[in-house]
Amino acid sequence: MKITILGAGAMGSALTFPLLDNGHEVALWGTEYDVDILNALRGGAHPRIGVKLGKVELYYPEELSEALENSKIVILGVSTEGVVPIFRRIEKEIGERILVTISKGLLDFEGKIVTVPEAIWEIKPDSIRKTVAITGPAIAKEVASKNPTKVVFSCVDIKTAEFTGSAFKTRYFGVELSGDIRGSEIAAALKNVYSIAIAWVRGLETSLNSKLNNIRGVIATMAINEISHFVELAGGRKDTVYGLSGLGDLIATFGGGRNGMLGELLGKGLSTSEALEELRKRGVGVVEGYKTAERAYRMLKQFKAEIEKFPLLRAIYEVLYKDVNVSEVIFRCLQDRI
Amino acid sequence: MKITILGAGAMGSALTFPLLDNGHEVALWGTEYDVDILNALRGGAHPRIGVKLGKVELYYPEELSEALENSKIVILGVSTEGVVPIFRRIEKEIGERILVTISKGLLDFEGKIVTVPEAIWEIKPDSIRKTVAITGPAIAKEVASKNPTKVVFSCVDIKTAEFTGSAFKTRYFGVELSGDIRGSEIAAALKNVYSIAIAWVRGLETSLNSKLNNIRGVIATMAINEISHFVELAGGRKDTVYGLSGLGDLIATFGGGRNGMLGELLGKGLSTSEALEELRKRGVGVVEGYKTAERAYRMLKQFKAEIEKFPLLRAIYEVLYKDVNVSEVIFRCLQDRI
Repeated sequence: MKITILGAGAMGSALTFPLLDNGHEVALWGTEYDVDILNALRGGAHPRIGVKLGKVELYYPEELSEALENSKIVILGVSTEGVVPIFRRIEKEIGERILVTISKGLLDFEGKIVTVPEAIWEIKPDSIRKTVAITGPAIAKEVASKNPTKVVFSCVDIKTAEFTGSAFKTRYFGVELSGDIRGSEIAAALKNVYSIAIAWVRGLETSLNSKLNNIRGVIATMAINEISHFVELAGGRKDTVYGLSGLGDLIATFGGGRNGMLGELLGKGLSTSEALEELRKRGVGVVEGYKTAERAYRMLKQFKAEIEKFPLLRAIYEVLYKDVNVSEVIFRCLQDRI
Repeated sequence: MKITILGAGAMGSALTFPLLDNGHEVALWGTEYDVDILNALRGGAHPRIGVKLGKVELYYPEELSEALENSKIVILGVSTEGVVPIFRRIEKEIGERILVTISKGLLDFEGKIVTVPEAIWEIKPDSIRKTVAITGPAIAKEVASKNPTKVVFSCVDIKTAEFTGSAFKTRYFGVELSGDIRGSEIAAALKNVYSIAIAWVRGLETSLNSKLNNIRGVIATMAINEISHFVELAGGRKDTVYGLSGLGDLIATFGGGRNGMLGELLGKGLSTSEALEELRKRGVGVVEGYKTAERAYRMLKQFKAEIEKFPLLRAIYEVLYKDVNVSEVIFRCLQDRI
């Protein structure tokens, strides 16, 4: 069947590999930001994932309708902020197609903090049983290299998750199914936030020239348990967090990622504005966890949750937005209950 | 108060730091295997943790009674295999003293697989409310450097855990309390086993010259969830596993440790006997996870558990004891349910 990927970034492009290996027809549409990538892909490697794609049909920004024509599944492969604008452009044409979201973040939709699929459902309520989220440990370069990976396909309608997952499942790309799309999305979004704190430790190790594995274990444990508590408050399942969507993804991005780069610089003692400036200089794009931290904080307020039950999230928020020092909050974490 | 540590290995010696900082009198007794360490400590650094100890009273193997005299807490700081023989030597003298276990393993006690405290209770049943286990992320060198650490003190009698924990608690050494000593012990022991599998990935990365973070996330997630299921079968609590005793410790030892060294060599394609021989050549001591894997397998049989529900443990067992190849079992993991 024909599957359309909207957005030619790293992850959207990487997903073409299992789809092609399963014999599907794959259309890759680039946004206005992706034109350089599309040009590079005409004969060359993908600039972000470093490999040539297989037999994919490429579509330029003005060819959106052609890209969508006859497709059965549409993957929203744009950044979190791009999802709503792009979805509004296809809303009328989408019909009965299955929508797949892969961006990991929270959205401010008309003043309310929601997950990515929920923003789509606000716009098109009848898409709820047709929306599938992919979460779990999936670094794009590794997927594109066909290195072993396993992810979660979540949907309110488990049959839709199953149908969609079977289009992707290969020997190297394992698929798990879940009905807990809200839990999966929140776990994935919060992972980006808490990854910042875990990477503080790497920065501190460098500046102290000393190993700090013990506190890394403490902070990662606090992270997973706060995410689990958060997801429960949001009506999701704790199991989701202890599975691939939370723990698995957290561990896969332990040593790197943009959120990790930000956290590491903060751990070295830079202020948030200095760290963000440094990342801009290095050409690093949007750090999802930075904005998501503030939105997660507001989401907790929506739940009327006690922020004291999230000491690590509070510490992250204070470091990012109030210029509190990392080494100060690290020692505070030792006193908190996990 | 006076606290006696039996065994002058890395962890027993590291624990002298928070105890001295809290003003306690600390007696460190060395076994027959520790004489070189005791000699080195007379004026020099501890050969395993690389730092000088503070004002600790050192006792040689023949001075066991003197070391124990007037102490209120006795820490069994010997290897897992050493616990029963050493305990039998002090059994008559121990009286009302609190016993603290720190070794992470399972014991074959008269043909039955039990945790370390349970072996003690088999010998001295009235010690059950006086036995405290320390688990959680605590790499000895980091404790000795007073780097931030947080561990769990577990006891059937929470008041005993609290009293003992307060002897250790400092600004850099955080303490959490738990009543789930069985769960904590099993989580800690199994962590050593599953660390082998997580380190396979490092070995494979080297031999394939490719990053495999996604599958590392998958395997670590499987590990934690199998340990959690195992602990539940054993009558412990899942929360214990998702806390510092399981997840926290697993993450702290991610990049290293003896179990990790063994796993890495297996991931590079060595057979178990080749890998163990290589570690002997490098002067690496007992790899706790190797023996514990086999005992964990037998413990599951004691529970009459379905081994199919532990696909990763089975894979570890097959790699360690049946010379099955790591890359074969890795791809099998993608098909298993987590």
